[in-house]
Amino acid sequence: LRSIMPKPFSENFLLRQLFDRESCTYTYLLADVKACEAILIDPVIELAERDANLVKDLGLNLKYAINTHMHADHITGTGKLKKLIPGCQSIISKAAGAKADIYVENKDEIKFGNFKLEVRSTPGHTNGCVSYVDHDQAVVFTGDTLLIRGCGRTDFQEGSPERLYNSVYQQIFSLPDHYTVYPAHDYKGFTASTVGEEKRYNPRLTKGKDEFTTIMNNLNLPYPKKIDESLPANKVCGLQDLPDHLKF
Amino acid sequence: LRSIMPKPFSENFLLRQLFDRESCTYTYLLADVKACEAILIDPVIELAERDANLVKDLGLNLKYAINTHMHADHITGTGKLKKLIPGCQSIISKAAGAKADIYVENKDEIKFGNFKLEVRSTPGHTNGCVSYVDHDQAVVFTGDTLLIRGCGRTDFQEGSPERLYNSVYQQIFSLPDHYTVYPAHDYKGFTASTVGEEKRYNPRLTKGKDEFTTIMNNLNLPYPKKIDESLPANKVCGLQDLPDHLKF
Ligand SMILES: [Fe+2]
Ligand SMILES: [Fe+2]
Repeated sequence: LRSIMPKPFSENFLLRQLFDRESCTYTYLLADVKACEAILIDPVIELAERDANLVKDLGLNLKYAINTHMHADHITGTGKLKKLIPGCQSIISKAAGAKADIYVENKDEIKFGNFKLEVRSTPGHTNGCVSYVDHDQAVVFTGDTLLIRGCGRTDFQEGSPERLYNSVYQQIFSLPDHYTVYPAHDYKGFTASTVGEEKRYNPRLTKGKDEFTTIMNNLNLPYPKKIDESLPANKVCGLQDLPDHLKF
Repeated sequence: LRSIMPKPFSENFLLRQLFDRESCTYTYLLADVKACEAILIDPVIELAERDANLVKDLGLNLKYAINTHMHADHITGTGKLKKLIPGCQSIISKAAGAKADIYVENKDEIKFGNFKLEVRSTPGHTNGCVSYVDHDQAVVFTGDTLLIRGCGRTDFQEGSPERLYNSVYQQIFSLPDHYTVYPAHDYKGFTASTVGEEKRYNPRLTKGKDEFTTIMNNLNLPYPKKIDESLPANKVCGLQDLPDHLKF
């Protein structure tokens, strides 16, 4: 049980988790409060003002607005944040096939103040999915690759159950058990988990690869409600072809 | 800005925040993982199984299921948790006027393992509202007394803007700035704040008491949807007169 105890954060490291009730997306604000440098992971366009205001309230400068992948269920807030906070740069993986200021690949590092995230390529939900690891804080932002007691669907975009399974085992379950798992979504009200808990209790990922693949291929999920507006917008950071109510 | 940096938790102290999307209620699991003793603050009846399963997954024993006040917007999960986890005892303030195994008052302490919560009477949203403070972790669970950039309504039950204002200033804003504020609800996707942030940015509580009272008396909020089923059920810990779909 002590294997799941989070380790204390470094001095001056701030983490704030934010939630979008509509798409059940978690956005993460990370900052070095001494250097006043912040980053946002997976912001949502409808809540970009909320996030920009929080950054301002906390006296921080937003360096990067980052996506874990090209989302199909909501429009990214990165483009809007670039307008709200001039100087902020957007980041996505090269393999995502979307426009951004900076493209990252496996093993790259994203730096803000004294802190850094390691990029881990974790394809399977989409080809361009990455997870971001902060080894000093023992946290991993898993996007839709690993969810709490679940995982992202693999039945559209470039989904592949086998690739997702390999990604989770090679890149996430290989981390120490006490690393906190912060996913891009949760639908049941969980806010965090740990690598150790998911290795032991994830109902899908505790199965063998064949059984996992069978489960994933038989979920029969509905077509994502917002995919037809989200994908074209997310290809350009949520900057073009926006629905009327989101135009800015 | 460093005044808002959370202090690291004590060794073996675990905190998990949980969310109910329906009522926007936060439930908090706190534990001493060495002593294997846990408590839950403000569980929701519909999600009692989720909470009980998490307690079990983490190998913990649930000692107390606690309410910050008698809720009007959802039915408490404390009664159901007592059935799911025999031995667990319910707690509410004496002034709440609801049934529970243990009644607490201002300055009482609630102990679990090596840790303890100080009870602070913070009436105003209701007469029986209390906040729970863990001085060792520098966190305060404010119930509906202080919300992030907001506060609980004061226009039904025994609501009183003046009393709420005094409670916030005397019992919560008197805590050090870096104490993390964990409220019972959030409707905009914020998960936590700090005493320092709310003292500076809370749009209602930064006003004088008269202006605050005027604001609160003119909110014209709709009658709480679930109040007529919630209050009678919460008077008995969510154990009687439950709507059919919640009977157990
Ligand atoms: Fe996704
Ligand atoms: Fe309430």
